[in-house]
Amino acid sequence: MKIIRSVSEMIQVRQQLSGKVGIVPTMGALHEGHISLVQQCRSHSDHVVVSIYVNPLQFGPKEDFDKYPRNLSQDTELLSDEGVDIVFAPEELGEQNSETKVIPGELSTLWCGKNRPQHFEGVLSVITKLFNIISPTDAWFGQKDFQQFRIIEKWVEDFYVPVNLHRAMIVREKMGLAISSRNAYLNLDQKYNAKNIYKSLTAAKSAFMQGETSTKVVLELSKDYLKKMKIEYHAIIDPVTLKPCDKVFIGSVLVLAVKLGQVRLIDNMIFDM
Amino acid sequence: MKIIRSVSEMIQVRQQLSGKVGIVPTMGALHEGHISLVQQCRSHSDHVVVSIYVNPLQFGPKEDFDKYPRNLSQDTELLSDEGVDIVFAPEELGEQNSETKVIPGELSTLWCGKNRPQHFEGVLSVITKLFNIISPTDAWFGQKDFQQFRIIEKWVEDFYVPVNLHRAMIVREKMGLAISSRNAYLNLDQKYNAKNIYKSLTAAKSAFMQGETSTKVVLELSKDYLKKMKIEYHAIIDPVTLKPCDKVFIGSVLVLAVKLGQVRLIDNMIFDM
Repeated sequence: MKIIRSVSEMIQVRQQLSGKVGIVPTMGALHEGHISLVQQCRSHSDHVVVSIYVNPLQFGPKEDFDKYPRNLSQDTELLSDEGVDIVFAPEELGEQNSETKVIPGELSTLWCGKNRPQHFEGVLSVITKLFNIISPTDAWFGQKDFQQFRIIEKWVEDFYVPVNLHRAMIVREKMGLAISSRNAYLNLDQKYNAKNIYKSLTAAKSAFMQGETSTKVVLELSKDYLKKMKIEYHAIIDPVTLKPCDKVFIGSVLVLAVKLGQVRLIDNMIFDM
Repeated sequence: MKIIRSVSEMIQVRQQLSGKVGIVPTMGALHEGHISLVQQCRSHSDHVVVSIYVNPLQFGPKEDFDKYPRNLSQDTELLSDEGVDIVFAPEELGEQNSETKVIPGELSTLWCGKNRPQHFEGVLSVITKLFNIISPTDAWFGQKDFQQFRIIEKWVEDFYVPVNLHRAMIVREKMGLAISSRNAYLNLDQKYNAKNIYKSLTAAKSAFMQGETSTKVVLELSKDYLKKMKIEYHAIIDPVTLKPCDKVFIGSVLVLAVKLGQVRLIDNMIFDM
């Protein structure tokens, strides 16, 4: 496994690769969710590139950029075990002198975008750079960041970006909590309480499976489990427009963001049968 | 020579090409300036693609999008004579449903950007699409659009866009008028007067070559030739920041935009020895 820290070396190495080149973009602090993405990428690609870069542009000024967990040597060991070919971990990606911007549209003003202005602009900016440097044929992202995936997908559609996007299912702990780097911030009490997020999602889904299609009713049932948390948003949305929908339908999505103490968690569930 | 009108066919055809693929992006209405770009591209590339697309996004609401000259059959005949391999002339490039934007920074607020808001955003948008569809290794642009070139170059730098940019010298008519599709709008009187633009540029350059480095003095000398035109801007600028400079130096550029009647013309000259 090659560990590459410079953009020019990455570009040079990429030119030697042929066939399917898959990328899994990460911010490091790798967990089972990332590993699942890597495994799917591995089974589909001739060459697997994992990028590790804590992108300053996608953190707000009051967010956890400085304390975001970083552990490159542990991350690379994990990736080596998974048969990854290249880890691309640049020191920086030219944020200092950059002027041009990639700006997402209306999709980015909803949900996470409300409380994290410029977050998705930062995401698109770094993804644009990574894709230009690595020229992947395929890229994997997790469903946990449902809105992020849709915004990236829309950018790919709008600009004919030559890459196949793959959205991988959410990986959960035994009791259903979606795996996230930020789970490490939870104390025991909070972690216990956080299990209710999954209960809230499954309650909604079973109601739908039993025939309930009123968004209002389904959300109320779901909300019952979120009483001890601060709800940032909690909605059933159209998967393409990301706008709230009146009726739950197959393919619509329950999305939520909650705070347990200072820890902000997001999760979602697609209504299917 | 292949004429391709659909994005999906262009992507498919591109996948068969190897080696250097050069692109000359145009809006059609081809003239000697374009042909010069094509010839330089031809001598440097294994495959030459010329795109012809009158990009609606780079025209303002009061500009000449509707009456911009279009003559695809004449254009393709010219290109065929020049040994072009592919003409890519899409019907549209998804402007209707597009949400994501590529926004140039401060460079786009100066000069042409002042009187043509959103013009450079439109340019970057279409160039992003063309580059994603065609994946050129090299691209040619004319120096006449000096600011446009620098904005594209900055975007390439900022986002590590994998393409080599080439800026080709301005092609001029016998009496020095820079060749432009919009010259066709000039009546005889205006065309006669337009020759003074070149005189204005060369007067500045000879002053510099004789040792004059005061921007003020050089601009005054140059301005003498522009009396019968409406000057939109007329400045000596730094080639990287595009900002006005106090002293003329090797590499600095005299840029101007003038109006003769309703016809807006731009031109420039780099100060070199």
